[in-house]
Amino acid sequence: MPLDLQAAVLRAAYLSGRLRVADVVDAVLAAIAARGDDGVWIHVADRADLLARAAELDALAAAAAAPGDDLPPLFGLPFGVKDNIDVAGMPTTAACPGFGYRATVGAPLVDALLAAGALCVGKTNLDQFATGLSGVRSPYGIPTSPFDPAMIAGGSSSGSAVAVAAGLVTFAIGTDTAGSGRVPAALTNTVGIKPSRGLVSSRGVVPACRSLDCPSVAALSIADGALVLDVISGFDEHDPWSRQFPAPAPSRVPWTGEGGAPSRGGLGAPPLRLGIPAAATVAADCDDAVQAVFGRALDLLTATGAELVEIDLAPFFEAGTMLYEGPWLAERYAAVGDFLEEHPEAVHPVVAELLAPGARISGVDVFAGVDRLRTLRRQTEATWRAVDALVLPTVPRTFSVADMLADPIRRNARLGRYTTFANLLDLAAVAVPVGFGGGLPYGVSVIGPAGADAQLAAVGAALHASSGLAPGLGAFPLATASGTVSGMATTGPPA
Amino acid sequence: MPLDLQAAVLRAAYLSGRLRVADVVDAVLAAIAARGDDGVWIHVADRADLLARAAELDALAAAAAAPGDDLPPLFGLPFGVKDNIDVAGMPTTAACPGFGYRATVGAPLVDALLAAGALCVGKTNLDQFATGLSGVRSPYGIPTSPFDPAMIAGGSSSGSAVAVAAGLVTFAIGTDTAGSGRVPAALTNTVGIKPSRGLVSSRGVVPACRSLDCPSVAALSIADGALVLDVISGFDEHDPWSRQFPAPAPSRVPWTGEGGAPSRGGLGAPPLRLGIPAAATVAADCDDAVQAVFGRALDLLTATGAELVEIDLAPFFEAGTMLYEGPWLAERYAAVGDFLEEHPEAVHPVVAELLAPGARISGVDVFAGVDRLRTLRRQTEATWRAVDALVLPTVPRTFSVADMLADPIRRNARLGRYTTFANLLDLAAVAVPVGFGGGLPYGVSVIGPAGADAQLAAVGAALHASSGLAPGLGAFPLATASGTVSGMATTGPPA
Repeated sequence: MPLDLQAAVLRAAYLSGRLRVADVVDAVLAAIAARGDDGVWIHVADRADLLARAAELDALAAAAAAPGDDLPPLFGLPFGVKDNIDVAGMPTTAACPGFGYRATVGAPLVDALLAAGALCVGKTNLDQFATGLSGVRSPYGIPTSPFDPAMIAGGSSSGSAVAVAAGLVTFAIGTDTAGSGRVPAALTNTVGIKPSRGLVSSRGVVPACRSLDCPSVAALSIADGALVLDVISGFDEHDPWSRQFPAPAPSRVPWTGEGGAPSRGGLGAPPLRLGIPAAATVAADCDDAVQAVFGRALDLLTATGAELVEIDLAPFFEAGTMLYEGPWLAERYAAVGDFLEEHPEAVHPVVAELLAPGARISGVDVFAGVDRLRTLRRQTEATWRAVDALVLPTVPRTFSVADMLADPIRRNARLGRYTTFANLLDLAAVAVPVGFGGGLPYGVSVIGPAGADAQLAAVGAALHASSGLAPGLGAFPLATASGTVSGMATTGPPA
Repeated sequence: MPLDLQAAVLRAAYLSGRLRVADVVDAVLAAIAARGDDGVWIHVADRADLLARAAELDALAAAAAAPGDDLPPLFGLPFGVKDNIDVAGMPTTAACPGFGYRATVGAPLVDALLAAGALCVGKTNLDQFATGLSGVRSPYGIPTSPFDPAMIAGGSSSGSAVAVAAGLVTFAIGTDTAGSGRVPAALTNTVGIKPSRGLVSSRGVVPACRSLDCPSVAALSIADGALVLDVISGFDEHDPWSRQFPAPAPSRVPWTGEGGAPSRGGLGAPPLRLGIPAAATVAADCDDAVQAVFGRALDLLTATGAELVEIDLAPFFEAGTMLYEGPWLAERYAAVGDFLEEHPEAVHPVVAELLAPGARISGVDVFAGVDRLRTLRRQTEATWRAVDALVLPTVPRTFSVADMLADPIRRNARLGRYTTFANLLDLAAVAVPVGFGGGLPYGVSVIGPAGADAQLAAVGAALHASSGLAPGLGAFPLATASGTVSGMATTGPPA
């Protein structure tokens, strides 16, 4: 019988004294071993090191005056870290062995997790250099869908999402530049939180597009993800892309986390307004399974009294094309182009093919693109006056591993239709599961302007709860939680 | 006897009924005619049109119940507009005849001035495409120093500054990307206000570097400039680079405008802290005249109780090099490169030579530059925790027209040493006169983060008043004003 690793469940067990962290280490390593060569991990911590860490934590719990009362917020929670983020003492490869190095200093976000009592199990697989949404561009194997090994799990944070879905860790850190934290959430029946850019430090992260890179959180529930985001959020003066957000303010949406109707206030408050694409857009972009699941999401939201407003997504889609098919490819080339030129044989051929045009983009094109993006951003700002958030399918469809390998660039782009624009337009998002189609999970993303993290989490949590889905592989029900998304992020615009 | 065109003086005369707008039109046109071919104007409005406008305004005053009481804030103030900004019904050339067109729609900032009762006298000369700080790159002649026709007046808003200095207009609108509003202020004994980027709409302005362009105000005093800035400030949703600033809040520095000591509050408040360069930096950069005037500025500020703090300017200077010698040259090329390629003969040879490398900058270089600039900005943010504002020489020296023409690119860059970084680092600035050396005027710039416009104006106004200088050509004393810089700009960070 596997362990339910959801944060509230583990914490209750730790507080009751029924469970020790050492037990969790044993269970996690047994579960990892049981899955065998699943492509999820690039590096797993040594059992001895994990048990030493567990002993430290168990001693901390034993020494607590009132057992557990003052345990740190992530006490004894096992987690994985995408292998483009430094964990002190572990290798970082970005899924490129030739690029790998052993990190001596941890990324501040990882150090914050450790300081909050969490337990790092290892480094997870990814599309090389976080370049891709497919999860199939890695020499370390392909972490496939937990529901069908012939299907992709999505990427680039593929290992992180599958590790969470399979119950190997409570949460995992990913990164999300074009959708890398959201796409695999959609395809693994897990939650992906893509915070506002600059809310979480990107120091110690191998850059993909520096101005857009964003650490993300994979978890079984918004509650667990928000707990993690609380710990890793905060201004980092040594990260030039970090931003200061206003002090946390309560979400306009009270979050019940129990399927209660999200609304914008108390009695008599106006209903939540949610933007959705035109039906024709969804029909053109999405396969039948996704259309059915998206329809279910809208039904669930409507049932809570939310008002749905059709939004023209044209400027969002145009912005999205600028990342992999436009000027921002030069930013990706700026990050890894030198390595690619010096070690062409070390780079995955699809990644190399995709990056190559980045070297040929002119500075004039970049500035023209920056100006155009500014115009598109201005156009999309009207959306946030009209609605409280956008609700979109996270992916328009999925692919088999074989199909993705057969046409890797075009199909990858297809996956990112509803995610790629978010960082370019300075948006935050959460991806939550909503339903299954053909045996595969799908979900929606709740998207809003930077700073709206708490509100998006509230809407996402309510929708997730109302879906009635058991998260991940479904071994355990979604742990209930109540209250607001404590202290999470902010509701104000960034400084 | 010329008219004193300072705003408070004109307004008092209008209110008393001693003066009509038509009289001002006559005086202004006579003064323009008296100067002859001074290179200041590219286009002067027709006398008939000006008199018709004056008649309208005089009728408005005559119709007022209590004469003048409800006259708009800029009633009857004559102004000039740099010829890279559209005035409806007038030509716009950007000092490039081949580029010229007749504007049918005015820039929103110009329309706001007209709606506030001001009177547009014409379009002023500039360095072509606002590319330069020298004021000598125009086929429409060279507006030289009002104090010595052999010396430059600075640019690119050369005509605007000289028109104000010579008493031809109350104020003039310029633009300031690299220092184009501040450098000519320093060399003409006038004030130049370079607002926070995005505080004033750039719509209807011929772009130089879209992401950095900033309309500026030339006036005889901070009081007059602030009055104008009040009118032209405000969010423009149709300008993608416009920004929303918090609602006006009182400056931390009470502004007396009468030489009173600026401080950060009431009794017992800490003294104003002002950042200054190391003495060795000033000695290395600036000639004797500027060093003497800068020393005078520091004496005047110290006498008011301000505390001077040495600041390392290295990151500011490094940022400054990115504009004309680095990645942002590609943004300038993005603005006018197409025209340059199609009409190479139409472009000033120095401007063409300067722009050409912009076509060869790669997108990778731009993104690397964007990232580097972000790091420099982060470094400079520490300055704003240490001091309330920076006080720097506006220019390190001046040049004769002959010397500037002989070595136009290197000497131009030299002029911008203390101004070029401002927009790249998202700073606001005011340039005010402080003293004369060798018969030529020099001044200092008061510089702070975006949103600090009101505070910078307060410090600048106090310093200007304490200098005891009569502004411009010195025909009239600096008009006294009191109270705060009413509603001007904001003190908060931008959204």
